[in-house]
Amino acid sequence: MTERNLEGNRIRGRIERLRIRILGLRGDAILVTHLPNIAYLCGFTGSNGMLLVEPHRATLFTDGRYTIQAPEEAAGTGVRVRIAKKGLLGEVGTALRGGDRGKRRVLFPPSKVSVGQAQQLRAASGPRVLWSSDKNTVEELRAVKDAGELDTMREAARLISEVFDELTGLIQPGITENEIAAEAEYRMRRKGASGPSFESIVAAGPRSALPHARPTQRQIGKNELVVLDLGAILRGYCSDMTRTVFVGKAPRKVRGWYHAVLDAQLAAIAALGAGVAAGDVDAAARRTLRRHGLAKAFTHSTGHGLGLEVHEIPRLARGDTAKLAAGNVVTIEPGVYIEGSGGIRIEDDVAIGERGVEILTRATKEFLEL
Amino acid sequence: MTERNLEGNRIRGRIERLRIRILGLRGDAILVTHLPNIAYLCGFTGSNGMLLVEPHRATLFTDGRYTIQAPEEAAGTGVRVRIAKKGLLGEVGTALRGGDRGKRRVLFPPSKVSVGQAQQLRAASGPRVLWSSDKNTVEELRAVKDAGELDTMREAARLISEVFDELTGLIQPGITENEIAAEAEYRMRRKGASGPSFESIVAAGPRSALPHARPTQRQIGKNELVVLDLGAILRGYCSDMTRTVFVGKAPRKVRGWYHAVLDAQLAAIAALGAGVAAGDVDAAARRTLRRHGLAKAFTHSTGHGLGLEVHEIPRLARGDTAKLAAGNVVTIEPGVYIEGSGGIRIEDDVAIGERGVEILTRATKEFLEL
Repeated sequence: MTERNLEGNRIRGRIERLRIRILGLRGDAILVTHLPNIAYLCGFTGSNGMLLVEPHRATLFTDGRYTIQAPEEAAGTGVRVRIAKKGLLGEVGTALRGGDRGKRRVLFPPSKVSVGQAQQLRAASGPRVLWSSDKNTVEELRAVKDAGELDTMREAARLISEVFDELTGLIQPGITENEIAAEAEYRMRRKGASGPSFESIVAAGPRSALPHARPTQRQIGKNELVVLDLGAILRGYCSDMTRTVFVGKAPRKVRGWYHAVLDAQLAAIAALGAGVAAGDVDAAARRTLRRHGLAKAFTHSTGHGLGLEVHEIPRLARGDTAKLAAGNVVTIEPGVYIEGSGGIRIEDDVAIGERGVEILTRATKEFLEL
Repeated sequence: MTERNLEGNRIRGRIERLRIRILGLRGDAILVTHLPNIAYLCGFTGSNGMLLVEPHRATLFTDGRYTIQAPEEAAGTGVRVRIAKKGLLGEVGTALRGGDRGKRRVLFPPSKVSVGQAQQLRAASGPRVLWSSDKNTVEELRAVKDAGELDTMREAARLISEVFDELTGLIQPGITENEIAAEAEYRMRRKGASGPSFESIVAAGPRSALPHARPTQRQIGKNELVVLDLGAILRGYCSDMTRTVFVGKAPRKVRGWYHAVLDAQLAAIAALGAGVAAGDVDAAARRTLRRHGLAKAFTHSTGHGLGLEVHEIPRLARGDTAKLAAGNVVTIEPGVYIEGSGGIRIEDDVAIGERGVEILTRATKEFLEL
């Protein structure tokens, strides 16, 4: 049996699991519009498509650019491909119109269908289709990774850890943030990544205090913090890792901040586990930073799910009551940001197992003074 | 006057032009939700925000991650920043609730607001706000580039042309598609790009017949076509260029295909001009390929607008009646795709002026046999 067939079989199981969920939600079908969800369910990686999953068939609608690619990618998954000649939405709607079985309840994701698309779908499908909001059904399936996915994510995390190790040899006064980002992405690709999983962040000196800074032509100076937040996509799956280093010998105050963030990060990892509420993990990080007098400097959430997308459910945010499960892969990334001085963030990708957790990103968390 | 202020003033003019359009559409305000539109109007480059433009004020709503960055980026544009503590949508809706001036007609883009967001906005804004669909008002402003934008786009196009020139020295049997893509993106960044403007396409041999192929670990072989479709983002603006080369000495048939595509590309460029219908440019390319017996092998549109996004209006598609205008920057990219054999595409970025066109991407279009 070829690799492709194995992959096809694994994916076929996903559509079966989705059908069971649809039944549970008393739907007759589900329209999947979010591209990562489509990739998950049938392997299609194009930029335009909709997947209609019905009880006895599943159909991928896409356009003429994917005439060759779509059947190739969906081979072995049991999904048939329809190349829409006019607009996708019209063809999807028309496909739903057929049959004489009375009303049909079709689930759709209200956050992934625009007002304009909904109007077109309703017009094409006619009054016998009852469109019914479905929030996260496919995302919930995706949140629990299978063994094959975990293998890939392990590899994607190892890849980005290696890139970080290599970069530490390049960081020195005079090199620009952009140059480091270029080196990072080049090395990802040379190691087999299809690209970065988000816009690489390399932020030095006062810019390190911006949690989402874009790299600039600014040269790194002596005695500056450098935040490196990097991720790679490997065979569709994302890694996402942050390390913060210091160029020169760090003042005591900065060392103190670093160890406070590391404490918070370790506390959050220790709090992780199947059955734990997501908000409790966030609280563990926040409590630790509060003890260090840095609660207010931590301006974002503790982490997020990771997989085919770089931000997925679960969210590890304040007060979130969702329960974590074995198979979840999440980031743990507390940080502190002191306007004018700089910022520190430490982030790992962590897989939750039945009986413990596995840290996928293995680059050192010692405070590196370069 | 600093560069920042100049930029601020230029952007301020954009909001004024938008207000005139809103009046023309009998709107009382417009809610801008699409991030490139927000960047265009107020300089904000974050990943979460909504811009509400009213007659006497403009407000950018974003979240706590951008507390420092948003006011910095919007400085000098007259836009005030509101950091939303709860959800953006709730705060935007609440802001619209105020005043005692009766009903207000607020324009919004139905293709850039999800069904779920619309529900939240309606709930928060209450019954006195009449939400009114607006298709493309900001996009139409963006389609006409000003002198500063054209300068940046010229530079972004020159950058990608230089990258292509460098790559021709690397393409040889044994190098993988991924390695070429890595080299391409590394060189973009080293030249100042913030990254690629889309997933780089490097497709060799039979894979060149897939118009949207992703690079793979496949090694380039002797006697293969290689399609390189590459773009860079420079200070927010995209370039997008395709060249096709042959590794070895091309058979006569392949040379014939190449020159047919080049003829079609030149015919489409010759058809460009202010006042011309977009569909007529597409027709010029298609007509030329038909003469070469290759009409059916051309499976996509001739081109698209380019700017802050890599796909913008105008679309140069079959039958499109929209009129081109001076200031438009478009790609011209006919191609032919022969399943099993390979594909050829040639693409330039072209600026339309009052009295002619300017080809921004200057890499050679001679048929390179490497």
